Amino acid sequence: MNPRRVVATGTFDILHPGHLYYLKESKKMGDELWVIVARDANVKHKPCPIIPEEQRRQIVAALKPVDQAILGDQTDMFRPIKEIQPDVITIGFNQHFDVPTLRQQLIERGLAPEIVRIGKYEDGDLCSSRYVVQRIINVRGKNDENRV
Amino acid sequence: MNPRRVVATGTFDILHPGHLYYLKESKKMGDELWVIVARDANVKHKPCPIIPEEQRRQIVAALKPVDQAILGDQTDMFRPIKEIQPDVITIGFNQHFDVPTLRQQLIERGLAPEIVRIGKYEDGDLCSSRYVVQRIINVRGKNDENRV
Repeated sequence: MNPRRVVATGTFDILHPGHLYYLKESKKMGDELWVIVARDANVKHKPCPIIPEEQRRQIVAALKPVDQAILGDQTDMFRPIKEIQPDVITIGFNQHFDVPTLRQQLIERGLAPEIVRIGKYEDGDLCSSRYVVQRIINVRGKNDENRV
Repeated sequence: MNPRRVVATGTFDILHPGHLYYLKESKKMGDELWVIVARDANVKHKPCPIIPEEQRRQIVAALKPVDQAILGDQTDMFRPIKEIQPDVITIGFNQHFDVPTLRQQLIERGLAPEIVRIGKYEDGDLCSSRYVVQRIINVRGKNDENRV
């Protein structure tokens, strides 16, 4: 029997336990977790990532729940999904996909994976890359640059 | 035969490929990699970490080369090393230990691990937590806070 493939997606800019929770829960949905890491050029709904895309991919690939981490396609977000042929696609609690629309777009491409939304990780103070960034600006941005 | 235990240490504030390189190279020195993650209160030679200690520990523990990640002791840095009884201690290229002094301090505590300095990772633009922090301040610190 083929392994049950799960696809998770995200930017994974500055890694925090909320990311780990999403990836661990995603892995539980199958046997192989593939992560599609967003390209720098495609992050448009929030500020451009701090960490360059290849470094973000390397760090995600080094995490225990992750079997494969690849960069997304710059023009067709469905191309890697067609190649992976996942049985499940997981969506993070704060990812702005409309599930019925996504399902329809997948069907049009001959794909019918289960779509699972992973809940929010409720523990930890800094479980958002943008809070980490804001904290850095608050804590360090006003200091002597030589100390940073 | 007992597994050959390796101890690596560090703050691991904002994870980058330089950290991964240090941990992967450390793991190659033995069978089990234990990482002692610096306590917030003990980081005195550079600014206080951005990410709280328990979150830093969780992220390090989730990395493939790492078998165990524990927090350091707030008053005696040798206590966890005595408990782990490592065969090897690895030192990062930018960690300011004087190796003969460290070796002497270990001998006084009945420990004689091999001490190995891991070289610098030469690839990647942002292989330093402090460069990442500086980039955040440069790129985002001057923007509208709502965008961050």
